[in-house]
Amino acid sequence: MNTFDSQSAHALLLQNVGRFIELDETQQNLYLSLFKEKRIRRKDFLLQPGEITRYEYFVVQGALKVYTLDLHGKPHVSMFAIEDYWTGDMASFLTQQPSSYFIEALEDTEVLMISKENWDRLFQIIPAFEQFYRNLYQRSLVSYIQRTNQGISLSAEERYHIFLKKYPFLINRISQKDLAAYLGVTPEYVSMLRNKLSKK
Amino acid sequence: MNTFDSQSAHALLLQNVGRFIELDETQQNLYLSLFKEKRIRRKDFLLQPGEITRYEYFVVQGALKVYTLDLHGKPHVSMFAIEDYWTGDMASFLTQQPSSYFIEALEDTEVLMISKENWDRLFQIIPAFEQFYRNLYQRSLVSYIQRTNQGISLSAEERYHIFLKKYPFLINRISQKDLAAYLGVTPEYVSMLRNKLSKK
Repeated sequence: MNTFDSQSAHALLLQNVGRFIELDETQQNLYLSLFKEKRIRRKDFLLQPGEITRYEYFVVQGALKVYTLDLHGKPHVSMFAIEDYWTGDMASFLTQQPSSYFIEALEDTEVLMISKENWDRLFQIIPAFEQFYRNLYQRSLVSYIQRTNQGISLSAEERYHIFLKKYPFLINRISQKDLAAYLGVTPEYVSMLRNKLSKK
Repeated sequence: MNTFDSQSAHALLLQNVGRFIELDETQQNLYLSLFKEKRIRRKDFLLQPGEITRYEYFVVQGALKVYTLDLHGKPHVSMFAIEDYWTGDMASFLTQQPSSYFIEALEDTEVLMISKENWDRLFQIIPAFEQFYRNLYQRSLVSYIQRTNQGISLSAEERYHIFLKKYPFLINRISQKDLAAYLGVTPEYVSMLRNKLSKK
């Protein structure tokens, strides 16, 4: 792995935040000072079930999957995160209860991370982050509701096509097996859909 | 139905908002002026699939269920809402795309409702609502994540007990059939769990 390019990482984070709020230079520096850098290798974990997550993560480079195991030990992927994505287990982060999730690197990955303590302070020292998180959570909720609803009312094939359309940049970075665990089908079924599509 | 008691309704709404933010009297009156009152009879709908929802609802009195139908026409209840609850289809409200949901009254119900236009203006005229909605959405996300995760990793019996513990005030106001459609089991299974519990 190369050295962590802090300057690019900070630029990406400020650009992400800049989509919803404006910060002056003092606020930008204050905000960046709340983060730590972390690098993990492919197949390593940021979080495992039973741990209480102390961090929220912003992906600077690489790819992660967030998943849990069902009663039969079968993995269910709840999200993939690549550059410019926020990730973590929000339920464990906000409630400080043990997580049920694995967060595993699919590639060598670099993240900026903010601790629960710093995150709680953030709203006091830069109140504009209320607006940032209102917007971020709003988007997350809409995604959640739409995905849950698609799971109820659409076929696996329709969900596969929605995934391709919504995340075209992801498809070559995740395995058939992980995509299957996201869609709730077998890898063989994903393979069949992929072949069907390539013949069109 | 009696006449709509605006004063009590407004007091309940201000109390709800007051859990997260403080408003002075001018702001309180401005905020309340953005809402309209609506009453619906038991079995009537606030929303049906295909409609674009223009409102967010605050329940003043009564009970509602939010549900959708799967590919086989089977209902899936996503939430129940009683007094002091916010409800609606957030995905349709925020994106102004057609809804997939029914919102049906389980009892004669009174709501205060805010239109998308007024809601958008709200953040300009009283910026403290960024903080209110950051907190409200945060809670919704945690609930969503926990419920999805319970659906994956817990048995129907465990989920039934969590429901009883989390919403003891709901259990006598909803039918066995609706509870089954919330838990994702048959009404007969809920009946069996109920009998099992009463024998303990």
